[in-house]
Parts: sequence; structure tokens; C-alpha cells
Amino acid sequence: MESVRKNGIGLKGPMTTPIGKGFRSLNLTLRKSLGLYANVRPCLSIPGYKTPYDNVDLVTIRENTEGEYSGLEHQVVKGVVESLKIITRHASLRVADYAFQYARSNGRKRVSAIHKANIMKKTDGLFLQCCREVAEKHPDIVYEEVIIDNCCMMLVKNPSLFDVLVMPNLYGDIISDLCAGLIGGLGLTPSCNIGDNGLALAEAVHGTAPDIAGKNKANPTALLLSSVMMLRHLGMVEKADRIQKAILKTIEEGKYLTGDLGGKASTTEYTMAVCEHL
Amino acid sequence: MESVRKNGIGLKGPMTTPIGKGFRSLNLTLRKSLGLYANVRPCLSIPGYKTPYDNVDLVTIRENTEGEYSGLEHQVVKGVVESLKIITRHASLRVADYAFQYARSNGRKRVSAIHKANIMKKTDGLFLQCCREVAEKHPDIVYEEVIIDNCCMMLVKNPSLFDVLVMPNLYGDIISDLCAGLIGGLGLTPSCNIGDNGLALAEAVHGTAPDIAGKNKANPTALLLSSVMMLRHLGMVEKADRIQKAILKTIEEGKYLTGDLGGKASTTEYTMAVCEHL
Ligand SMILES: CC(C)[C@H](C(=O)O)[C@@H](O)C(=O)O
Ligand SMILES: CC(C)[C@H](C(=O)O)[C@@H](O)C(=O)O
Repeated sequence: MESVRKNGIGLKGPMTTPIGKGFRSLNLTLRKSLGLYANVRPCLSIPGYKTPYDNVDLVTIRENTEGEYSGLEHQVVKGVVESLKIITRHASLRVADYAFQYARSNGRKRVSAIHKANIMKKTDGLFLQCCREVAEKHPDIVYEEVIIDNCCMMLVKNPSLFDVLVMPNLYGDIISDLCAGLIGGLGLTPSCNIGDNGLALAEAVHGTAPDIAGKNKANPTALLLSSVMMLRHLGMVEKADRIQKAILKTIEEGKYLTGDLGGKASTTEYTMAVCEHL
Repeated sequence: MESVRKNGIGLKGPMTTPIGKGFRSLNLTLRKSLGLYANVRPCLSIPGYKTPYDNVDLVTIRENTEGEYSGLEHQVVKGVVESLKIITRHASLRVADYAFQYARSNGRKRVSAIHKANIMKKTDGLFLQCCREVAEKHPDIVYEEVIIDNCCMMLVKNPSLFDVLVMPNLYGDIISDLCAGLIGGLGLTPSCNIGDNGLALAEAVHGTAPDIAGKNKANPTALLLSSVMMLRHLGMVEKADRIQKAILKTIEEGKYLTGDLGGKASTTEYTMAVCEHL
């Protein structure tokens, strides 16, 4: 954490929080402590890796600090428990701002705010209101609002209806995994968390896969693609492009794929092939 | 409502709640007033109607009365709002019971409880605990717990991993629409709401499509299949099977499809074709 604070940038692998030992999620702790308010996850179809969908090209931008993740819960009486979902104007404006800035600087045309304001009129309603205010400052980017259930249905029917999606924390958790599924899963999906003053922490969001730990079998693609996002964030666009191309070429070629992608290569062999293409 | 209470059964079309006129959702009001605690939605691939998925055969069972739909929300201070999610032992046991009973009486092998108890440890934790208690009484049915984000990813990667899914209200709202998307959308998906003492209200869950109202263009499949669920609920299995077959045959044949399915038939023509097959 000291290093990330000092350098303003980091790349992290997955972490597992020990269960039942009273620890709070390590990932959440990092997000909170470093003020990582937006989680950005591009989902781009990988040529040569077959899924039921072609040409997926979506970016989910998830509010990363509040909402259903408040940690505020209690038992009212025996058998009745409640959780608090918190939405603030501050955090909603901040993530909406980031989404539109991201859309602009990445040449994207449309931002969809995902919500359930027909039910949670006040919380999701405030989120939408903030998105609308920000949208007004970006008249050249199409803004729309989509109810989460409908959004999920449309995503599986026709993902090309969407471009950039911005949403509260839990919806982002759900929809970013759904979108990852469209292109093959979390093993292929990079992510980057954004904080104040340009702070960024890129991370692979898949699990730690303890069953294959130390066996030289893990697929490093999500982590490599996350490092590519890190480079882009630092403005090293040419280097980012080269590494990304080498990764995609290795997967498209299909000679050195790890087990999760149906291949037999070790982590080392796959990585060597990427370096070769580089 | 009087008729449903008296006869214990009903079939309803979609309803739209006027927006911004202070009405509470009409659909929710019906669910609450009639005590419709479980929403059951089978999603079965329709032969001849192409989607990226074959052989989808899932049933979502959604808790229908509490959770994020409590309607309890307020502004704490300006710019800070909160919503309450309520989970009770009573409602969780009731819907879990129904899910296992449904699995048993429909020859299904597995029940998956969908949750986010790694974050909402108390509310979703209580839901899971209730599911576990009920699962213990059904040792012949496989029981598993799946985190909602992972569930959505797995559903789009390989829906055949699941069988019956049971979950709190909002997750049910989201996942049932996702599953409907896998087989072609809400225009093809029936649903039935279950209350105490065998009360049941079958309903088409798609919108009212005001743009085509009165034009004889609507696709009645979701409503027809919902009526099939109603007949099954009444024990009229043979009649249900016959109508269902006639519907599926009409769609498979493809001669009289409505506009939403890429055809040119009017509602009347499609319905006549179904009656013909009957
Ligand atoms: C591990 C878990 C706490 C986390 C989350 O819910 O945010 C994960 O699903 C993610 O998306 O990074
Ligand atoms: C219309 C809306 C209130 C409703 C819900 O959220 O439950 C709908 O999406 C549904 O699934 O029946």
C-alpha cells in the first residue's frame, strides 16, 4: 500500500480472504484504503477463442466504494435482519464523471447508466440524477438509462447494444462478471481501479485458484492484460499495444494455451510464446 | 383480486404503473396483497427459435415479498440516501421449502441458492442458513451455494450447469431476466406466482408494449405458456401438455410468427395456428 501511494500506480494479483476468521475482505480493504472509487473492466472478444458471442466490445465502470458494500447490517429482532445500501451524491458524481471522461478519451459514443430506480427510487434515483447532471456536460456522448434486469436480458441477447456502462457497486459486480462470461470468463478479463489524483491499481479479478497453486498451470492472461491497462493509464500506449497484440496473437494461434482454455501448455510455455510474439 | 382470492387461481397480463403520479407498482401491490411469496420462471429452449444457446432448461424461484423491495428508503442528510434490504427467516424458509418441493415434484436433481453472503454476511447469510436447513430435509436433491456474480458468469458460459435456482428478490429479478434472455426473451417466458394454501397467479412478465397496443401484433406466447403453468398448477397436466405442444409446434414450424420473432403474422394468425395444432 505504501508503494502504491508513493508511486500512484500498482498491479496486483488475486487475493483470498481467509473465511470465518473475522477478516474483512482484503480486496475491499484495499479499495477503501486507497480510495479506489471506480473499477473499470473492458470486455473485448478475443479472436480465436470461441464463445457464443462475436465482437463483444463493452466497458463496465463500477462504483467501487459504497452501495450494498457499506458493511452496515444488523439483526432487528430474531429472524429479521437488514442491510443498508448507501448512495451518496459525492460518489455518484465522481464515478459518473469518470465514466464520461473515459468514454471521451477512448473514443466511445454511448454511456448507459444501469439502475433499479423503479424500485429503489431514492438510492438508485440519486445515482441516476447524478449521471444525468454529468451527461448534460457531455452532449456529444449518447446517454441512456437501463433497468438492471432488462440490461442483463439485452446483454445476453445482443451485447452490441451497449458501449460504456456505469453503475452502483453491486450491479457492477454482477454485470462485469456477466460481461466477462460473454468473452470467456475472468481468466481473460483485465481490470483497473481508479482513485484520486490519477492513482490506479490494475488487478486480475479472478480467484486465486488454490487447487493449481505452484503447479505452473495458471493462465496469466487477465494479469497480463491488466498490466496493459496499467501501461495505458501511464500513457505508455505504444508499449501497451505491443504487449496486447502479442497476447492476442498467442491465443489466436492456439498452440500454447493453458488448461482453462482447453490447451496443455504450462504457464511458462504460454508466457514464452507471448514473449516470442513480442 | 376478489376473484383470485375466491378461486385461488388467476392469469394476468402485463400492467404498467403510471409513472410520477404517486402510485406504487401495481405488480408489487398484487404480490404483496395476495401474499405471493414465490415467483417461478421456467426457461426452456424453444426448438426452432435460434439463440446462442441450445437446450437451456432452468427454473428460477425468486423470493417475491421482501429483500431490496422493502420500500424502506430515506435521505440521511442532503446528498446521502439509504435503502433497507430486509431478509427474514420466515420468508426465506418459505421460499426455500417451495424450491425443494418444486424440484421434487418436477423430477429435478439440484437446487442452487444464489447469494452475495461474502459481502452481505447477515442478510444473505440468513437466507443461506435457511436454505441449508431445508436442504437437509431433502438429502436426495443436490444442494449448492453460488455467489451471484459467479452465477451470472457461469450462466452465460454454460447454462446447463444449473437446474433449479432459488434466491432473494432482487437477484431473482436480475437472474430470471438473464435466463429469459438465454432462450429469446420475456416474450417467450412464462411465470407463475405462488401464495399460501395453493394460491397461484400466472403472469406474463414482459411489458405492456404500448407502441403496438390495439394493432393485433403482440406475441401472446408468454401469456399462453403462463396459462399452461396455471393448468399444471391445477393438476390439469394433460391439457397443459397439449397446449404447450401446440405452441411449440407453431413456433418450430415458423410459418406464423409475430414481428418480435422475425415473422409477419398478426396475433390472430399466430393464435389460429396454435389452435390448428391443438
Ligand atoms: C471477492 C469479492 C469481495 C469481490 C467483490 O464482490 O467486489 C469480487 O467479486 C470482485 O468483483 O472483485
Ligand atoms: C416491473 C417491476 C417492478 C418488476 C420487478 O422488479 O419485480 C419486474 O421487473 C418483474 O420482474 O416482474
